Amino acid sequence: MKVILLAAGRSKRAKPIEDKNFLRFCGKYLIEHQLDSLQKAGFTDIIVMGGAHNLQQLRKITKKFTNQDSGQIIVHEQMKLDDGMAGAILDASKITGDDDIFIVSSNDVVDQKAYDLMFKASQNGADSYLLAYKVEEYFPGGYIKVDTDSSSESHGQITGIIEKPGEGNEPSNMVNLVLHLHKNPSELYQTLRETSSDRDDRYEVALDKLMKERKFQAVPYEGYWQPVKFPWHVLDLMDHFLEKHTDDQPNIDPSAQIAASATIRGNVKIAPGVRVLDNAVIQGPAYIGENTIVANNALVRGSIIGKNCVVGYSTEIARSFIGDDCWFHTNYVGDTVMGNNVSFGAGAICANLRLDEKEIKSGEDHNKVSQTTGRNKLGPIFGDNIRIGVQTSIMPGIRIGSNSMLTSGLTIAQDIAPGKFVKAAAPSQDLEILDNRAQLDPNARDEMKQHLTDD
Amino acid sequence: MKVILLAAGRSKRAKPIEDKNFLRFCGKYLIEHQLDSLQKAGFTDIIVMGGAHNLQQLRKITKKFTNQDSGQIIVHEQMKLDDGMAGAILDASKITGDDDIFIVSSNDVVDQKAYDLMFKASQNGADSYLLAYKVEEYFPGGYIKVDTDSSSESHGQITGIIEKPGEGNEPSNMVNLVLHLHKNPSELYQTLRETSSDRDDRYEVALDKLMKERKFQAVPYEGYWQPVKFPWHVLDLMDHFLEKHTDDQPNIDPSAQIAASATIRGNVKIAPGVRVLDNAVIQGPAYIGENTIVANNALVRGSIIGKNCVVGYSTEIARSFIGDDCWFHTNYVGDTVMGNNVSFGAGAICANLRLDEKEIKSGEDHNKVSQTTGRNKLGPIFGDNIRIGVQTSIMPGIRIGSNSMLTSGLTIAQDIAPGKFVKAAAPSQDLEILDNRAQLDPNARDEMKQHLTDD
Amino acid sequence: MKVILLAAGRSKRAKPIEDKNFLRFCGKYLIEHQLDSLQKAGFTDIIVMGGAHNLQQLRKITKKFTNQDSGQIIVHEQMKLDDGMAGAILDASKITGDDDIFIVSSNDVVDQKAYDLMFKASQNGADSYLLAYKVEEYFPGGYIKVDTDSSSESHGQITGIIEKPGEGNEPSNMVNLVLHLHKNPSELYQTLRETSSDRDDRYEVALDKLMKERKFQAVPYEGYWQPVKFPWHVLDLMDHFLEKHTDDQPNIDPSAQIAASATIRGNVKIAPGVRVLDNAVIQGPAYIGENTIVANNALVRGSIIGKNCVVGYSTEIARSFIGDDCWFHTNYVGDTVMGNNVSFGAGAICANLRLDEKEIKSGEDHNKVSQTTGRNKLGPIFGDNIRIGVQTSIMPGIRIGSNSMLTSGLTIAQDIAPGKFVKAAAPSQDLEILDNRAQLDPNARDEMKQHLTDD
Repeated sequence: MKVILLAAGRSKRAKPIEDKNFLRFCGKYLIEHQLDSLQKAGFTDIIVMGGAHNLQQLRKITKKFTNQDSGQIIVHEQMKLDDGMAGAILDASKITGDDDIFIVSSNDVVDQKAYDLMFKASQNGADSYLLAYKVEEYFPGGYIKVDTDSSSESHGQITGIIEKPGEGNEPSNMVNLVLHLHKNPSELYQTLRETSSDRDDRYEVALDKLMKERKFQAVPYEGYWQPVKFPWHVLDLMDHFLEKHTDDQPNIDPSAQIAASATIRGNVKIAPGVRVLDNAVIQGPAYIGENTIVANNALVRGSIIGKNCVVGYSTEIARSFIGDDCWFHTNYVGDTVMGNNVSFGAGAICANLRLDEKEIKSGEDHNKVSQTTGRNKLGPIFGDNIRIGVQTSIMPGIRIGSNSMLTSGLTIAQDIAPGKFVKAAAPSQDLEILDNRAQLDPNARDEMKQHLTDD
Repeated sequence: MKVILLAAGRSKRAKPIEDKNFLRFCGKYLIEHQLDSLQKAGFTDIIVMGGAHNLQQLRKITKKFTNQDSGQIIVHEQMKLDDGMAGAILDASKITGDDDIFIVSSNDVVDQKAYDLMFKASQNGADSYLLAYKVEEYFPGGYIKVDTDSSSESHGQITGIIEKPGEGNEPSNMVNLVLHLHKNPSELYQTLRETSSDRDDRYEVALDKLMKERKFQAVPYEGYWQPVKFPWHVLDLMDHFLEKHTDDQPNIDPSAQIAASATIRGNVKIAPGVRVLDNAVIQGPAYIGENTIVANNALVRGSIIGKNCVVGYSTEIARSFIGDDCWFHTNYVGDTVMGNNVSFGAGAICANLRLDEKEIKSGEDHNKVSQTTGRNKLGPIFGDNIRIGVQTSIMPGIRIGSNSMLTSGLTIAQDIAPGKFVKAAAPSQDLEILDNRAQLDPNARDEMKQHLTDD
Repeated sequence: MKVILLAAGRSKRAKPIEDKNFLRFCGKYLIEHQLDSLQKAGFTDIIVMGGAHNLQQLRKITKKFTNQDSGQIIVHEQMKLDDGMAGAILDASKITGDDDIFIVSSNDVVDQKAYDLMFKASQNGADSYLLAYKVEEYFPGGYIKVDTDSSSESHGQITGIIEKPGEGNEPSNMVNLVLHLHKNPSELYQTLRETSSDRDDRYEVALDKLMKERKFQAVPYEGYWQPVKFPWHVLDLMDHFLEKHTDDQPNIDPSAQIAASATIRGNVKIAPGVRVLDNAVIQGPAYIGENTIVANNALVRGSIIGKNCVVGYSTEIARSFIGDDCWFHTNYVGDTVMGNNVSFGAGAICANLRLDEKEIKSGEDHNKVSQTTGRNKLGPIFGDNIRIGVQTSIMPGIRIGSNSMLTSGLTIAQDIAPGKFVKAAAPSQDLEILDNRAQLDPNARDEMKQHLTDD
């Protein structure tokens, strides 16, 4: 049995997040969490399908897994990324031989239990097994249709997958997630090869054909499921990992230095080398990465902070996912997703609430349609290697592309493409410089000072 | 004896404050404070004259008084608000019958003692009694003229009221406040009816006539007096009520939750359900209303905060009156008056001092003349239901009308009418977006970090 | 022996710093530090050469020295400031008579040891003595050339000073600093008189002539040396004086009031009358001047704060030199040099780092060439009597002239001349005021509040 972990996607809809596989949740890359779960469930032979854009990083990450006794992980390149999932499976087939395969998408995050269920189910007599997620309300995905005719030969088997049937027309309460286990997959490979490569849904079309000939079984699953498609899904995932990976009590590495006046409360994990300075507060759930500094008066709550960050003086980071090497200084960062190496000038602010407190929209698809986010609190989204000037504000849901710089004193209410340098256009930066005719009263301050500390 | 409490005024000069009667000082509406004082002095039968704009709210507030044993309070509608004080008295006369009346303006706030003095004085033999406030320096009001001729029959009686006589021409050091007690008021009613309703000063004209026939007595008073005409008078009243209603020691309701690291010092009253979070400081005098949160690192001093407010992270509120349901987040609010349901985005600031530190002017009257405030520290004034975007600054003395929204990053130096949505006009929001040619040194931060916590 | 302390320079290149002699380091004017050192070394008879612009202040400062037993200090006016150093010496010669002279520039700060070395060396048999600073790498100054021919009559004597020889062409590793002691200076005076007064380098030319006739000896010196030419040199000096004048342990005057929750750590000196309020942190090295208030949550580190300042609520001052009577309120001030009586509105920020983290340039010389600073962290530089509006940001290395005011919400990226009033030019301050059509959900806040203090 070989796992084909599909990780070659280019995260287009997650932009400006560069590659969701490499987001680190509580110290581990997302793909590490998935590899861990697969190995724990008993899937020890894994092919990670990458693309030219992430192959090197995937190899680096999987190296330590490969050195373990727990199995073998090979990173394999998908040559034509436009061939999508079908292309990835066919490329993988060059090294799977006739082995059974377990196809897993890196776009879906599920509990360990889902992998366990698939591992156990695979010992039954069906040809293919699909993870079937039980939904409680309508979700615009692919619904699993099962033969419920008890007199039928195929009773209990999957007979089709109905894409977005519309509310009320669902053939079941089970949605198809891409955790698909196929025994003797040569027929699948053949069918994929015979399906036109122009089609986006080549794999789905192939499944549809196979279901008519082979026995497909649904593996019902009720636990955690989170797709990772849009950037704000990172916040949902963060909540999941914070809850999963930490405790009711602070878990502080002994090498961390915590000021006596600092407060660390609740479900907080603090990695080695962290320094927490005077009067800082970390309110769980929270994760603070290696060698990060949480400076004077800072407040971190409901957030993941990566490694080597500086949460500077008088900065609040609330309900946000922050990558590595990010620097802050007297900032507010709320409900924000941020890549690596982003720096904020003093006083820069992430707005996270509309004035009318309505749902925040973010970005536009190729049809110029703004995407709904389902959130009325959402900050901006940042890629990697970004610099923000002092006093600059960025509006809710705005996306700032990697390698961009925003100068000081701006109000950013539009998405910024990667690699841009943004400043105020003249004349919005024009000053009027007059002679100063005001006279200051040298004694005015004395009286004011008098009242400063009255009690 | 019936009190006629004049509360139908539309607070035009106090705008954007909606109705000064309903400002809550230390948990009680201003009009409640006045009703309390009247009842304590022995005036148990009260007619509150309201207008269509505030009748419902007046009825709601007075309901609890009416249920008490202490007397009866009726809210009565003045039909034509443009008829002013004379109209209110005549409308009230429909239910006073021939009872003696005590006319009290809700525009003046005085000590309990003033009501007590009036109550006692009314047992003397005069026909009418006016509260006479002793001034120490010239004030542009109505001065009481008393017959000082000891041989005169009317010796000691009031013979007239001189409006704004000009400094040096005052007929006495006593200013007329509208706490007027009239016995057998039918003659007053008749005179009012006979005075042209075109006149603004109909009541004053009527008094003038009556003084020639009836015996008017001044009731001298030296205690607290504060007119409530302009919005900044709310700050004067606040100081009064803070001083009056609290103690040298904090008075904290047992249901309040106070973090161990929070500091509460001096004359501070904390209502039920309040939460004070880590490192917050409340420096007396101060009042914190029911269920309000004073969050991490916040500083509140010399202020009244209403109920259900959130004084968020790293916010300072100094010498300000804040209504109910107001939210702040890393803001500075100084010397400011604010209605209910006002929210500030992070980093928004109330400026409260001119650069030249001179007196702040506020608003314009119908002649486009800016009003002097007598203050060199005064923040902006806010009505109800207002939203302020992140990083927006509002200049000293500026008035923001109810139901308005100001977007982010603005500098507001003009009054904003009610119900407006304010944003930067293009091109003041134009950005110039260039290609970013800067190269970042990956090691630059290491050295900086080295120095961060050196000691 | 008379010291001629040259203090008439107009600090042109240090602008907007008004007069570097009057910068107070750790409670003492720079010129006091120099006078102290001279007296300690044994130089008791001192002529301070001033100009019309600083004579009065020099007299005030030196008065207390003159009253001491330690010697006599006379302030003497240089009449033609354009005549430079030569002019100052010749003006001084009118009162030195034939006494030996020790010429000291106030532009160079050296250790006590340098003065001691000069005092001791002067008892040898040479005619003139120049302090010779040993450099370890090339510095663009005047290098001392010594006769190294052991057979020569003038072996070991200085034979010339080579100005900026270029790296690799240095005649020695010794740079000439203006601590020059001349015995029998009448010949020097004569030579100066004979040298054309059109030349900038009149004194240097005179020395060159004299070296051919008289015996000049180098006094080698390896200790601290800091020129005070550009404003950022003040930061270098600050580091020096902080290190020199304080201790590993806080040194707090008993009259200072320190809140129990405040933290004072390391090499910190606190002058009389200082108040440090709740949760403030002062991290050494730091000096806090008389009667200054460090308010709630403020952080001061690596800085000198003058007297009568207010470091207001939630303000960070890092690695900065702050004069007297400066006020802050929720500001960030980093790597900044500031004169006296400068006030910041809430939220105003000193930017101290370029977005590209490269070296900061500051100002322009008469050829419009920006000056390199050798620093990648440098805030703006402020003169005296300046007011900054709320939310205004000033970019790194920008110079703000004395007696200027900057209004609110500006981003200042250009030098501001003295005596200016700066505001946004229309239309960059134009607002668009529309009707507000947004509807607020009265219950939205309840749910948000629910999550505020969850743990």
